[in-house]
Amino acid sequence: MTEAVTASTPLSDDEVRRIDVYWRAANYLSVGQIYLLGNPLLREPLRRSDIKPRLLGHWGTSPGLNFCYAHLNRVIKARDLDMIYIMGPGHGGPAAVANAWLEGTYSEVYPDVSRDGPGMERLFRQFSFPGGIPSHVAPETPGSIHEGGELGYSLAHAYGAAFDNPDLVVACIVGDGEAETGPLAASWHSTKFLDPVRDGAVLPILHLNGYKIANPSVLARISEEELVQLLDGYGYRPVVVSGDEPESMHRKMALALDQALDEIAGIQRAARDGGDTARRRWPMIVLRSPKGWTGPKVVDGLPVENTWRSHQVPLTGVRDDPEHLALLEEWLRSYRPGELFDEEGRPFPALTGLAPEGERRMSANPHANGGLLLRPLKLPDFRDYAVPVGKPGTTTSEATRVLGTFLRDVVAGNPSNFRIMGADETASNRLGDVFAATDRVFEGERLPTDEYEIPAEPGGGRGGSSPRRLFAPHGQVMEVLSEHLCQGWLEGYLLTGRHGLFNSYEAFVHIVDSMFNQHAKWLKVTRRLPWRRPIASLNYLLSSHVWRQDHNGFTHQDPGFLDVVMNKKPEIVRVYLPPDANTLLSVGDHCLRSRDYVNVIVAGKQPALNWLPMDAAIAHCTRGIGIWEWASTDGGADPDVVMACAGDIPTLETLAAVDILRQLFPDLRVRVVNVVDLMRMEPDTEHPHGLPDREYDALFTTDKPVIFAFHGYPYLIHRLAYRRHGHDHLHVRGYKEEGTTTTPFDMVMLNDLDRFHLVMDVIDRVPSLGGRVAHIRQRMADQRLALRAYTREHGEDAPEVRDWTWPY
Amino acid sequence: MTEAVTASTPLSDDEVRRIDVYWRAANYLSVGQIYLLGNPLLREPLRRSDIKPRLLGHWGTSPGLNFCYAHLNRVIKARDLDMIYIMGPGHGGPAAVANAWLEGTYSEVYPDVSRDGPGMERLFRQFSFPGGIPSHVAPETPGSIHEGGELGYSLAHAYGAAFDNPDLVVACIVGDGEAETGPLAASWHSTKFLDPVRDGAVLPILHLNGYKIANPSVLARISEEELVQLLDGYGYRPVVVSGDEPESMHRKMALALDQALDEIAGIQRAARDGGDTARRRWPMIVLRSPKGWTGPKVVDGLPVENTWRSHQVPLTGVRDDPEHLALLEEWLRSYRPGELFDEEGRPFPALTGLAPEGERRMSANPHANGGLLLRPLKLPDFRDYAVPVGKPGTTTSEATRVLGTFLRDVVAGNPSNFRIMGADETASNRLGDVFAATDRVFEGERLPTDEYEIPAEPGGGRGGSSPRRLFAPHGQVMEVLSEHLCQGWLEGYLLTGRHGLFNSYEAFVHIVDSMFNQHAKWLKVTRRLPWRRPIASLNYLLSSHVWRQDHNGFTHQDPGFLDVVMNKKPEIVRVYLPPDANTLLSVGDHCLRSRDYVNVIVAGKQPALNWLPMDAAIAHCTRGIGIWEWASTDGGADPDVVMACAGDIPTLETLAAVDILRQLFPDLRVRVVNVVDLMRMEPDTEHPHGLPDREYDALFTTDKPVIFAFHGYPYLIHRLAYRRHGHDHLHVRGYKEEGTTTTPFDMVMLNDLDRFHLVMDVIDRVPSLGGRVAHIRQRMADQRLALRAYTREHGEDAPEVRDWTWPY
Repeated sequence: MTEAVTASTPLSDDEVRRIDVYWRAANYLSVGQIYLLGNPLLREPLRRSDIKPRLLGHWGTSPGLNFCYAHLNRVIKARDLDMIYIMGPGHGGPAAVANAWLEGTYSEVYPDVSRDGPGMERLFRQFSFPGGIPSHVAPETPGSIHEGGELGYSLAHAYGAAFDNPDLVVACIVGDGEAETGPLAASWHSTKFLDPVRDGAVLPILHLNGYKIANPSVLARISEEELVQLLDGYGYRPVVVSGDEPESMHRKMALALDQALDEIAGIQRAARDGGDTARRRWPMIVLRSPKGWTGPKVVDGLPVENTWRSHQVPLTGVRDDPEHLALLEEWLRSYRPGELFDEEGRPFPALTGLAPEGERRMSANPHANGGLLLRPLKLPDFRDYAVPVGKPGTTTSEATRVLGTFLRDVVAGNPSNFRIMGADETASNRLGDVFAATDRVFEGERLPTDEYEIPAEPGGGRGGSSPRRLFAPHGQVMEVLSEHLCQGWLEGYLLTGRHGLFNSYEAFVHIVDSMFNQHAKWLKVTRRLPWRRPIASLNYLLSSHVWRQDHNGFTHQDPGFLDVVMNKKPEIVRVYLPPDANTLLSVGDHCLRSRDYVNVIVAGKQPALNWLPMDAAIAHCTRGIGIWEWASTDGGADPDVVMACAGDIPTLETLAAVDILRQLFPDLRVRVVNVVDLMRMEPDTEHPHGLPDREYDALFTTDKPVIFAFHGYPYLIHRLAYRRHGHDHLHVRGYKEEGTTTTPFDMVMLNDLDRFHLVMDVIDRVPSLGGRVAHIRQRMADQRLALRAYTREHGEDAPEVRDWTWPY
Repeated sequence: MTEAVTASTPLSDDEVRRIDVYWRAANYLSVGQIYLLGNPLLREPLRRSDIKPRLLGHWGTSPGLNFCYAHLNRVIKARDLDMIYIMGPGHGGPAAVANAWLEGTYSEVYPDVSRDGPGMERLFRQFSFPGGIPSHVAPETPGSIHEGGELGYSLAHAYGAAFDNPDLVVACIVGDGEAETGPLAASWHSTKFLDPVRDGAVLPILHLNGYKIANPSVLARISEEELVQLLDGYGYRPVVVSGDEPESMHRKMALALDQALDEIAGIQRAARDGGDTARRRWPMIVLRSPKGWTGPKVVDGLPVENTWRSHQVPLTGVRDDPEHLALLEEWLRSYRPGELFDEEGRPFPALTGLAPEGERRMSANPHANGGLLLRPLKLPDFRDYAVPVGKPGTTTSEATRVLGTFLRDVVAGNPSNFRIMGADETASNRLGDVFAATDRVFEGERLPTDEYEIPAEPGGGRGGSSPRRLFAPHGQVMEVLSEHLCQGWLEGYLLTGRHGLFNSYEAFVHIVDSMFNQHAKWLKVTRRLPWRRPIASLNYLLSSHVWRQDHNGFTHQDPGFLDVVMNKKPEIVRVYLPPDANTLLSVGDHCLRSRDYVNVIVAGKQPALNWLPMDAAIAHCTRGIGIWEWASTDGGADPDVVMACAGDIPTLETLAAVDILRQLFPDLRVRVVNVVDLMRMEPDTEHPHGLPDREYDALFTTDKPVIFAFHGYPYLIHRLAYRRHGHDHLHVRGYKEEGTTTTPFDMVMLNDLDRFHLVMDVIDRVPSLGGRVAHIRQRMADQRLALRAYTREHGEDAPEVRDWTWPY
């Protein structure tokens, strides 16, 4: 299935020379960034004082990245391509920066780093220098949507960028180190989710240079037969470009790129004009070149080029060892800087002429600064999807199913601007109504048995009556059993200026903790760069949550993603716990309108009581926190106890506890506070949504016991509220890592979050009750044990618990 | 490369019948678990009251799991194999339980679930029933080392189990859903790390039944040519067994298994006897069978068998719909229970005769209860590796490099019982001395340029003099650029009774947050099961931490794994922050001796001051927290301020601040408290290591300001200490998500953790200083800005900061 590329090529000698000049210039600039403080053009012999005191950076991958960049520039110009460049080996930051400077973009974005000698000196100095720029490809790097720190996500980002961008080609360099990661290994299968008609193309370039930091890489050390089988099996047609002699490598790479782009064009033409949408194998390139190519071959008697020793800084003793200094000068001069830069240090026009112009430059392509292209979503009025609520807590809805009706119309109104990702859980999370408006994307073989009904939920209710649909090459719901792919695709989609939502089982979103971290870090930095335009927020909808894992039990019970999220910058993260269907609608609409945040919404999918009519829901969500007067018995002032709650199940148990308290202690003044926006719990000095102390005190009092029923791990509330005046009186119940496959009520009992235990907590903490009511406390304790016994005998919750509604 | 298996087979008709009977029995028992409360043997017509009120469980994968199990039993007996069974589709819990019961193991482990009619009724009732057992394969399931909740890790667990177990064959069923995950996609490459001489074998069985929860699966919907190319490329020789007609499927599967086991034996023989260690392609099986095989074909007019509708409970209306009830009865009777179980409900001997006996039963194999096989590590005396420390804070060591000398001898002393995992970071984390005792495992092509020196660190110092080593087919260090694989392999290794350590860059351990969660959950449950014997702890060494990411910057700065860890059960998790080399040795030794914990050690790799000689280090680590009198100026009582610290860099900055305070305010009574064992901060009611309030108060006082310099996110300390008496006076500095590629001192400055800011914190909080010393405070503020200016001009820290030592 592979094709060996021979040296026969249509490239003229002049073209070869021009590409080589460009490549040498980029290599020179890459080395200069790692080493030089001054003397950037080597107008004088290199001296110790020209060298940075701390040598930081990664050389090994840079020449390969520069090689690809130069060749892609040729084809962009030749074919007028709309192309962006994703650098999986993003620690090769010098390469990205070098090319952006050569293309002029760098000086446009950062005018003080001009495209001349003084600018070059600043370019070199700032790299990996305090107060300068990071050593990796980073938000600061023009042309990048991909941070090079944590490996594994380049190819998923590339496909995410290509979806719904039919004219875009995303060149994606995959390092052989990165290729060992799980997320990258899964990402190759993205071709099964790419529509040749309405999506763009991804051109993967697997760059094998043989080594990681200190180890050989797996894919470089299997036979070529095996490698090609693997890539064939992933659904590609690999072309191998292999060697270390520049001229022949230029010819081979040019030929391989022309072949690949011809094939891409052919696939797209056949699909778009000819209607041939059968899945094809997409072209890709395998580039085998030496690690640290063109760098020092031997240092201190040890081989460096083409070994792991060239991974970072191949010459480390430059400031102290004259021999190293001489080697560095020899290395830099090997690129013949006098042929590259004029007297003023400007690249010669013959050199810059290779690069495309304007927005065709990969460093200036607006897709890589997606906010430039962002079109707001066309959103229907979420109030139109409200469930009618009269008396609170007497009717039930499945909150996510209600949200699904709204999302259906979001999908319909934004056919190429909004996608929903899910790891095979979209129907299970009861968002099935969206399938009335769109299909699931799937390019694999489709069978009649794939049919489903709308609304559909496997193992759940059948009998939907809406039209049946099949999986299709194009759709706005993407489902693959890989949270990494869902997240990576969505990030790529958002970073290129579109909108979306990732729905997940709550516990399994931990799989992408680290991807979330990196995206939040990216957003934090971009918000401080005026030239980076705001992008749509990354929205998580976490359902099938800890309290209702009836099928699945302990492994599916983990609300700790919230703790991970809260460690990131307050300006970036938002957490919402709507207690019912209408509040979920209000929160969902708000999140879809927001920019540059990570929004986390936790909402249940099971039938649950509705508390608020839409007007009240909007008012409540706008405040983010508030007293539920209709549920309180303190007459608006001076409560004996505050019952706070955040999350649907905690709200249910809290109100059921209040019901019991009303019956037991008619004179007890109970205040109910519900929290939707978790950030309200923080001081306003810590988070933009934080409640000022005065307002917090007005809700929670400063001296009354607060029994807080929380959706997640209880510590999180303490962490948010530890500075609050009444903190010593705050008592939090939440998930304490107890659970199994059991009934809903047994779950809250196991974690002492149940209504009876909340009543016991009140008895224990309200001084006016204490002591006098030991018998009532005992009755509560007995009652919960009796209910557990019922559960264990009958296999379901007792009716008085299961069917409880708000009686007032 | 594939071989089609034909129906010609050596299996006799009687053997086919016997396997089929066994399979039917396991299927019957699987269905029974999902549905039945009573009438287990169908002695009477099925009635509504026989049915569970809540139908929970997963049928779809179960018949395939049972099919494989029955066939593996045949070959175990025929070949006297030592085999365990890993069920990737572990949500097929009914299958695992059914087979353990058929083999008699279940009744041995849980005597009340006897292997007869009453026992079968209990077996059915308890499944996915409150107070019973989970619906997934779980710690409660005999024969399992693999929890079936979160998908992706089966194959990594399988290889981990096989390492250093030369006589073991690990059969690993990979579901086609799981196969889409990143970790599983990477795991196929584990063959490049498996030594045919000293490791056992893994037999992957890729089970394609076409669907996940609601979607078709990718690997089932690519062409067989493509699939076989993929698996070939991963390094296997796949044999495809495909169909739905039981008799021919039995014959094909038996033939395929015999072929595969012959090949495994051949590879091992060639390597072990013939010395032929060239990497071979290992056999594997692709099993294509219908999802929900043998279940209801059509329900309510919709196809069920071989569609996603059979994923969970194919007949959902059994209690309310007589037609469904009849279908269920028909389904159950299709297995002909009268031929399977005798009058007493015992399986007929002809049936049980298929199963192996004793420890050959996969459900009773001791490798699946690894604590049974656990041999303690042979540990050298860690004190022998101590660095000499005279005056505190005047000499430097690289803490992890010192630990590496100890680990070198741990490796040497435990050649088949201890492995170190790392994502290409073992040398970078400066554990390179271990390579004096062992090799890195690698079965890929090896080149002369792979050589390295000992101790070696890429980009760092060269010139090691110890013997050079190459990568080798066997070794005790495993490096692959996949944290998922490192973690999965190590889990499999530990769960089968061995020991190990995972070293990682601190930030990237978040990649396995979710795997950690699941392992911690597994440990929590096993500790409550007396028949599960304790296993070695999962030890993390996190280095290249947030404060010293000189090369890498913001993406590599994330100390939040500690927050994830702290959410798990206190009985399972331990976190250590040794401040220097000798304390790291003491902590490391302690962790390697422990059982059933997850230990997290955070330690720096850069040259850092030594504080404690070994005796003092041991005493300090034993307490886990303590006053450093030699650094304090409170004369042992009544301090004005407590300066607390946890972590190497915070300890450095704290002591440097104390130095400044001594000069500025000679009369100020400062107490220094250092925390090694983070759990000591919690109340003893919350964690077994928690300090009683009395002792906590004696260290921290109840009323004096405490300035706490912490390695991680500051909230974590508040979360641990919020109940402490002096909490209102506790002021924590830590990482607040500010950073880039910069100098070490600039990093602490960016996060207000630097010595000058700590002094300012003291000035702001000690009443006796307040107000009078505004000019000194200003001097501190000026000084840090001047130091930043130095850093930004020179690209390195100023000497007075960089070379500071403890002067007293």
